[in-house]
Amino acid sequence: MELQFLGTGAGVPAKHRNVSSIALKLLDERNAVWLFDCGEGTQLQILKSNIRPRKIEKIFITHLHGDHIFGLPGLLSSRSFQGGNERLEVYGPVGIASFIRTALKVSQTRLSYELKIIEIANEGTVFSDKQFTVSCLPLDHGIASFGYRIVEADHEGELQVERLKALNIPSGPIYGKIKRGEIVELPDGQVIDGKEYVGDRKKGRIVTILGDTRKTDNSVLLAENATTLVHESTFNKDEEKMAKAYFHSTSHQAAQVALKANVEKLILTHISARYLTGDIIQLENEAKEIFPNTKIVKDMEIIDIPFKEE
Amino acid sequence: MELQFLGTGAGVPAKHRNVSSIALKLLDERNAVWLFDCGEGTQLQILKSNIRPRKIEKIFITHLHGDHIFGLPGLLSSRSFQGGNERLEVYGPVGIASFIRTALKVSQTRLSYELKIIEIANEGTVFSDKQFTVSCLPLDHGIASFGYRIVEADHEGELQVERLKALNIPSGPIYGKIKRGEIVELPDGQVIDGKEYVGDRKKGRIVTILGDTRKTDNSVLLAENATTLVHESTFNKDEEKMAKAYFHSTSHQAAQVALKANVEKLILTHISARYLTGDIIQLENEAKEIFPNTKIVKDMEIIDIPFKEE
Repeated sequence: MELQFLGTGAGVPAKHRNVSSIALKLLDERNAVWLFDCGEGTQLQILKSNIRPRKIEKIFITHLHGDHIFGLPGLLSSRSFQGGNERLEVYGPVGIASFIRTALKVSQTRLSYELKIIEIANEGTVFSDKQFTVSCLPLDHGIASFGYRIVEADHEGELQVERLKALNIPSGPIYGKIKRGEIVELPDGQVIDGKEYVGDRKKGRIVTILGDTRKTDNSVLLAENATTLVHESTFNKDEEKMAKAYFHSTSHQAAQVALKANVEKLILTHISARYLTGDIIQLENEAKEIFPNTKIVKDMEIIDIPFKEE
Repeated sequence: MELQFLGTGAGVPAKHRNVSSIALKLLDERNAVWLFDCGEGTQLQILKSNIRPRKIEKIFITHLHGDHIFGLPGLLSSRSFQGGNERLEVYGPVGIASFIRTALKVSQTRLSYELKIIEIANEGTVFSDKQFTVSCLPLDHGIASFGYRIVEADHEGELQVERLKALNIPSGPIYGKIKRGEIVELPDGQVIDGKEYVGDRKKGRIVTILGDTRKTDNSVLLAENATTLVHESTFNKDEEKMAKAYFHSTSHQAAQVALKANVEKLILTHISARYLTGDIIQLENEAKEIFPNTKIVKDMEIIDIPFKEE
């Protein structure tokens, strides 16, 4: 599980920061990629990555500002042009369907795959299966803007089949007992402790990806105990008034959310083009004053999301 | 007057060829830039050029396929974000208004300038002022697709005022006579021939920019005696059947149009990503067999459009 930041800029594209898009790469987990937001040029950024459009299984849109959605029609069309047949689901605030359907209709684009658009009107669970549950809460951005919390199911410890085979234990109901950690007597009289043949249980990871927002309590709820929190940082710590006026957050506010929510790592994105390299180091350092494990990401950067050491 | 090719690819963006957009730079003529088509990422290409979005006065859309229009919402928004106040006109086939208005509405984009959208249903003159007349004819591309013919008014010869002043001729009605090329007697008795004090008349240039199309007679009509013809070349000379099936042209067909229309220069664009460097040289050479003054352009390439030597 990795995050790749396809666009880390704010509002308008700049030479080295494209507008918003984040890929959650779930290749080991489900051979799929989920996108969060899709600003213009996202498909061009994908060309520079190892992401194949057909692997994009779901796209979650945080809010409908242009720098978060104007890349959707092109990406959806190209995915079809390149022969993608796999169904694709797009989740986003009410209005996203009208935007997509109008663009596809006007351009007479016929997709080679099933496109399901799920409009989100309220907070709650937007998707859930055995592996992942995605829920959302509204944020505070003037326009409807959601934060997403992606919770991975816990990984059960795996039965160490190779070791059992080395002991000449034939597969059968006995494997179930061993997996449950029972003490088992083998046909040849050996007694083994199942617990020693089952790998560690791993707690599922939690990734929180917030749309643009002012500081709000819902951010803390969404980020609670997250492995990784992705938060916007459009303004520096001294620009709280500006941040409030434009419905954005400062570096300090993002870090306060991370601290309060007890996350493991904070990633800052949505960085204004007016910040030069030195400013960005300062922005990161500001956040670190409050939450040390903070990182500002660049376009195309990949961040691993590790399991927690138990 | 220059053309800058912002995107020279076909269908989907590739690493070195973005989707369609052409800038007609009229900086000397009217301190403005006109765009022809606006595929996704056009505003990113503009970032690499010296074009300022506020200088974009008109955008002409040839047809509504996504690779020709999906960059419009982002460019229109960014032009506003960057403080452009100058009115902008977008011309394009019926449907372009619905696409733009939906994108701006859903994203709650309020433009800082007046946006006028002119939908084109029929052939004819789409714009005309003292300097330029733009007319269009339908092409053959499955979807409504137009070709545009941009005709510059002839430049009258300029009165060489500095030379007249050197002769101590005071400005007045006599300047009019001189400009008309009459033979004039000056107050001091000198006789001069007006024709010697008027610069050369320059014939206006003609630029023809065609949307995607099969070979069609209207292309020849639009390109007649053009200074520069921009024509798509999606397929090579041996792929006529494919070109017909997909409503596109081959290199040979483009060159045949240029020859028949008696143009001065042929520019080929809309080049498929499947063509590698060697293939592109071949594509160009194929066209040159029929029309020698042919050039295949690359992204960001600038082509000067000179006055014809009289």
